[in-house]
Amino acid sequence: MQIIWSSKEMQDTAEQLRSGGKRIGVVPTMGFLHQGHLSLIGLARRESDVVVTTIFVNPAQFGEGEDFERYPRNFDRDRELAEGAGTDILFAPDAMEMYPEGHATFVNVEGVSTTLEGAFRPGHFMGVATIVLKLLNITKPHVAVFGQKDAQQVFVVQKMVTDLNLDVRIHVAPIVREEDGLALSSRNVYLQPDERPRATALYRSLRHAETQIHDGERSVVKLKKEMFDIIAQAGPVQVDYIAFLEPSRFRETASVEPPSLLITLAARYGTTRLIDNILIPVS
Amino acid sequence: MQIIWSSKEMQDTAEQLRSGGKRIGVVPTMGFLHQGHLSLIGLARRESDVVVTTIFVNPAQFGEGEDFERYPRNFDRDRELAEGAGTDILFAPDAMEMYPEGHATFVNVEGVSTTLEGAFRPGHFMGVATIVLKLLNITKPHVAVFGQKDAQQVFVVQKMVTDLNLDVRIHVAPIVREEDGLALSSRNVYLQPDERPRATALYRSLRHAETQIHDGERSVVKLKKEMFDIIAQAGPVQVDYIAFLEPSRFRETASVEPPSLLITLAARYGTTRLIDNILIPVS
Repeated sequence: MQIIWSSKEMQDTAEQLRSGGKRIGVVPTMGFLHQGHLSLIGLARRESDVVVTTIFVNPAQFGEGEDFERYPRNFDRDRELAEGAGTDILFAPDAMEMYPEGHATFVNVEGVSTTLEGAFRPGHFMGVATIVLKLLNITKPHVAVFGQKDAQQVFVVQKMVTDLNLDVRIHVAPIVREEDGLALSSRNVYLQPDERPRATALYRSLRHAETQIHDGERSVVKLKKEMFDIIAQAGPVQVDYIAFLEPSRFRETASVEPPSLLITLAARYGTTRLIDNILIPVS
Repeated sequence: MQIIWSSKEMQDTAEQLRSGGKRIGVVPTMGFLHQGHLSLIGLARRESDVVVTTIFVNPAQFGEGEDFERYPRNFDRDRELAEGAGTDILFAPDAMEMYPEGHATFVNVEGVSTTLEGAFRPGHFMGVATIVLKLLNITKPHVAVFGQKDAQQVFVVQKMVTDLNLDVRIHVAPIVREEDGLALSSRNVYLQPDERPRATALYRSLRHAETQIHDGERSVVKLKKEMFDIIAQAGPVQVDYIAFLEPSRFRETASVEPPSLLITLAARYGTTRLIDNILIPVS
């Protein structure tokens, strides 16, 4: 596995690979890799000749008072895991490489960027869209793999790709979970021993809604209340939102309608903020 | 010369050309081509295997009350001129092709986009940056040629290219002028017979500053006043601004300092708004 720190060297390498007829797959990450990331790398591996994994904790997508400083980092471990999962090139620029002094250009996907996660994290999706565009321009992939865990991020990236005519296919990979259902996240390491079991209620609430909808329940108000109760009954928690969305537009809906429904949620256990979601077929 | 209307077809064609080792040069225009545009096409011709000229009157860069509706258009004439100047592919999408319903992604180059032209035309440079990025993503050029006439646009585009890690070289071509010095512009056709001679004062004022600076004058206040007087003495006019700028940062300066100075101006004759500029070496 080759490690590249310079965006210029990465871009030149990517251009040479493309000219040589190689298919490039990229997996953008913020490092502290877990099985979820490794599944993305595995997907890129199956669809590409050359797999580029990027590691960059992007300051532009963290708001004031968020966890940029304490976001977990472990480069040596990431390097081993990335290589083991099939990465050919690890691109790991530092902040000055990606945002030199005077950086002034930002990409905004209007509408979706200010709702839900965007409402709780102002500027977050502008930071996401900008860094993803930069990473795509540097790594020149044919396919880029993102995890469904960050459902709104996936929507923002797909919308940007369409609107800006980017010639790349976005592959969305399913959420990887612990045995007890907790969605894998680099932030799970923040959870205190007493918080960890409570957090399993998030996925239980999503599964409850899925079962109820499968059984014919159509009331969004009732389902939301039941989900909230499941989460609250597990112990102290601050639920930021539970949202029922039309997947194709990422807009909140007051009714459960075919062909599918996306439920997303965010909740805080102590200082740890977690998100999760489920896509439910509706007949 | 091939004419392409579809962005997908243009992008696929560009990708095939690149894969085949061809160098692509692009000249983005809003049509109603004049000798200035043709000089850009000529430059692209000398630096590329395949020259793509784009024609798109971009609604996103016109403000409310501006001249989008009446902006001059003549596709048949443009087609002949573009081909005669050495265009291989004419890309001429319509507005729905570039901005389908629901388009929501915009690129903003902060700072420079809100001064001078940006102050008089709010949103203009966001429209410019967004369409240029889309056109670059669609035509995949190795080199893109822009005219120095739109000095602030050139700065915005170069800054975007740097900040977003776009793998394209921006070639800036010198201003082409009428014999009496008026900078070529598609908007010159708006000028009434009594306004046309007055408008030559713009370049005269720029040349005056150049001569004075060459002769040792260093007072920005004095030079601006003399330029204003030259323009006003030619007859009725509304001067939007005369700006003395550091070329490398596109920031207004209160002093004339080495190695060079950029003077830009905008003025209105009746309903016609013209811009011009000059880059002056300072020893």
